[in-house]
Amino acid sequence: MLLLYVIIVLFFTHTFYYLIMAHKQLNIGLFGFGVVGEGLYKVLNQTESLKAKIVKVCIKHSNKKRNAPSSLFTTEKDELLYDENINVIVEVIDNADEAFEIVSTALRNGKAVVSASKKMIAEHLPEILQLQQESGLPFLYEASACASIPVIRNLEEYYDNDLLHSIKAIVNGSTNFILTKMFEEKLSFNDALLLAQQLGFAESNPKLDVEGFDAVNKWAILINHAYGIVEHPSNLLFNGIQNIQLGDALVAKEKNFEVKLVAQAQKLKDGKVAAFVLPQFVKHDDHLAFVKNEYNGVVIESGFADKQFFYGKGAGSFPTASAVLSDVAALRYDYKYEYKKLYHHTPHELSNDYFVKVYVSFEEWKHIPKDDFEWIEEWHAGEERKYLMGCIHVKELLGKIWWKANNTSLILAPEPIVEDIDILRLKKRSLELAGIE
Amino acid sequence: MLLLYVIIVLFFTHTFYYLIMAHKQLNIGLFGFGVVGEGLYKVLNQTESLKAKIVKVCIKHSNKKRNAPSSLFTTEKDELLYDENINVIVEVIDNADEAFEIVSTALRNGKAVVSASKKMIAEHLPEILQLQQESGLPFLYEASACASIPVIRNLEEYYDNDLLHSIKAIVNGSTNFILTKMFEEKLSFNDALLLAQQLGFAESNPKLDVEGFDAVNKWAILINHAYGIVEHPSNLLFNGIQNIQLGDALVAKEKNFEVKLVAQAQKLKDGKVAAFVLPQFVKHDDHLAFVKNEYNGVVIESGFADKQFFYGKGAGSFPTASAVLSDVAALRYDYKYEYKKLYHHTPHELSNDYFVKVYVSFEEWKHIPKDDFEWIEEWHAGEERKYLMGCIHVKELLGKIWWKANNTSLILAPEPIVEDIDILRLKKRSLELAGIE
Repeated sequence: MLLLYVIIVLFFTHTFYYLIMAHKQLNIGLFGFGVVGEGLYKVLNQTESLKAKIVKVCIKHSNKKRNAPSSLFTTEKDELLYDENINVIVEVIDNADEAFEIVSTALRNGKAVVSASKKMIAEHLPEILQLQQESGLPFLYEASACASIPVIRNLEEYYDNDLLHSIKAIVNGSTNFILTKMFEEKLSFNDALLLAQQLGFAESNPKLDVEGFDAVNKWAILINHAYGIVEHPSNLLFNGIQNIQLGDALVAKEKNFEVKLVAQAQKLKDGKVAAFVLPQFVKHDDHLAFVKNEYNGVVIESGFADKQFFYGKGAGSFPTASAVLSDVAALRYDYKYEYKKLYHHTPHELSNDYFVKVYVSFEEWKHIPKDDFEWIEEWHAGEERKYLMGCIHVKELLGKIWWKANNTSLILAPEPIVEDIDILRLKKRSLELAGIE
Repeated sequence: MLLLYVIIVLFFTHTFYYLIMAHKQLNIGLFGFGVVGEGLYKVLNQTESLKAKIVKVCIKHSNKKRNAPSSLFTTEKDELLYDENINVIVEVIDNADEAFEIVSTALRNGKAVVSASKKMIAEHLPEILQLQQESGLPFLYEASACASIPVIRNLEEYYDNDLLHSIKAIVNGSTNFILTKMFEEKLSFNDALLLAQQLGFAESNPKLDVEGFDAVNKWAILINHAYGIVEHPSNLLFNGIQNIQLGDALVAKEKNFEVKLVAQAQKLKDGKVAAFVLPQFVKHDDHLAFVKNEYNGVVIESGFADKQFFYGKGAGSFPTASAVLSDVAALRYDYKYEYKKLYHHTPHELSNDYFVKVYVSFEEWKHIPKDDFEWIEEWHAGEERKYLMGCIHVKELLGKIWWKANNTSLILAPEPIVEDIDILRLKKRSLELAGIE
């Protein structure tokens, strides 16, 4: 009997697929009714053609006044998660643990899910991948990385495993805003941070932005779609901009660089991938130098498409709502991430075996483990701060804290990754022989 | 009986959809085996996970040596178009008439189609839309506009009708290359064109690029996906860069502008859309000023996502193949353009009722219909050439040739569209009263 159905279905699917899909009605249960949730509600109400309707909204505080009929709201999450009439759950709440609970229950209950929770997704990636495989249901989260820039969908659809050489991005608008204001308007770090908060570009807890946690969460999500790497964000080499000094800005200016918080992933010669989120000197003609203030930007280098650059707002209610909306629209044709790089290819491994060229500024030499450097090629000692330029193995940074502590500021050089260390050693040796060191 | 099938299908579709789609094998019939076709063949051969195989290739000249088994090739197009084993036709040939014949036969014969022929698509848009509606089959053509930049897919998926304020783009890499070389390296127009041809950035017939035909074809395609406008390219206001003079470059430099061939579409206050492809003065901090040499760039302004910028290679064999490949990948989940702005909304109308601010340089006053200008606010007379800055109704440009003839060069001002002409008239009147004119 089942076989008969299969044959019938196979025969008619093509025709009926359009018939059904063209009329697929999405009944959405929404978690969260802040600016993103409310924005989404308004747009869906205005856009009948989407055939997507928010039928119930779960909120935390029932006593707040809302711009929608009160019958829409509940504080009971199960009223959404166990309602058979609801086929899509959209969650735009702030709490990562609750978000994971909602997403996993929804998938287990047969509902497609759209989420914007980067922290939750980054930290629960293995479980989330398994839930998707078990349920066969779409779980989309374009809003979780670079909001209005459709980077996840483009990585999924456009770059095959063998072709993606590198991806380099500014994924945190708040730190980019602060750096822009520090460099272009000479604001102090604290004034720039305050301004970012006033304008709504910074997370409620600025530590998440400023110390790189938000950026590395997004990067953990994106390197999965780029290279099939599944890695907890805490295992990635990362830092924020908390120790960047005005003096660093002056050195950068002198060398004709800008300082950006750059998330980078690059295929190495051995086929493994170097990935990190660190402050980086960026040349003026680098695409990322174009990315100012609260904007995000992504540069993708691939064998086929060459260099591509995507630029847009990476945070804020409207850009986030726009990404959520596009995910909802994609559900109408049952679009799912395929995780091609993970499932259809041998996924790439993360490498911890490469060198990086760094600039380090610090207060006292005793804070710097000079012997850990492969090579120090330049140093300056000022009254208050000193700095050096050198080359160091990433193993000397991973899991160590000297380069984040004591006000020490580490910034990568442009094109920071060094694979041909032998050539570098040779250069060092010849300089030593010449009596320079 | 049909009803039974429908019920069964409705019941099982969800489950079987994944079953079938996950294993959908694409058997491709390929037209054209130039650099794009051959590149595609190689990648599909290398990438088993795509489950897409080129089973037959139709070529024009059977006597050329090819880097593929000879059994693959035929010169008989019907061997592909009428082979029931082939479910996808990909055409990457140069001839627009033949391409239309291939595409329409393929759709009628129940095959999904991927095409890269911008001229064919732009000129046959109404027929192509009808064929898609009748057949219900996917016809994808991402490669036809901005090649490696996924602009069609993003316009389809990301911007709802009410939200898209404007789209502004550099869609022709060849003219952009020529302008870059003229402005930055002071090459003459002819030397720059020659260099573009040597590097393979220019069409075999340079007139198509240089006089704006290629750009306006792409624009006719994109304004359909952006605003639901179906208009033959010849009805759009357009020009190329053939009359741009070195003197124009000097004026631009003086005013701190660059000159770009800009395709623009913008929603006006009356809900209609202004759309054109014309040389334009671009400010240095405009996103499009960032687009140099053979690259393309697209700036989209929308209510939700704010300003987005996409940048990448717009032509060339690899970027084109990359776009074709992504369309092939999308066919595996039966992705189709929905033409939401055309079918699900009231499509926008093209407006011919607005003013534009222009710069015009020319040899003699007698070539310029001064009275057609609403307002001329600045003019300079040099020995060889003269120029003016003014405001003119688009009706005075559409269908007229004075601004393309006699070596006259018309370049739009930045933010060229003027809707509030009354304010402008008032300003003019007050200047007249002050005795300036």
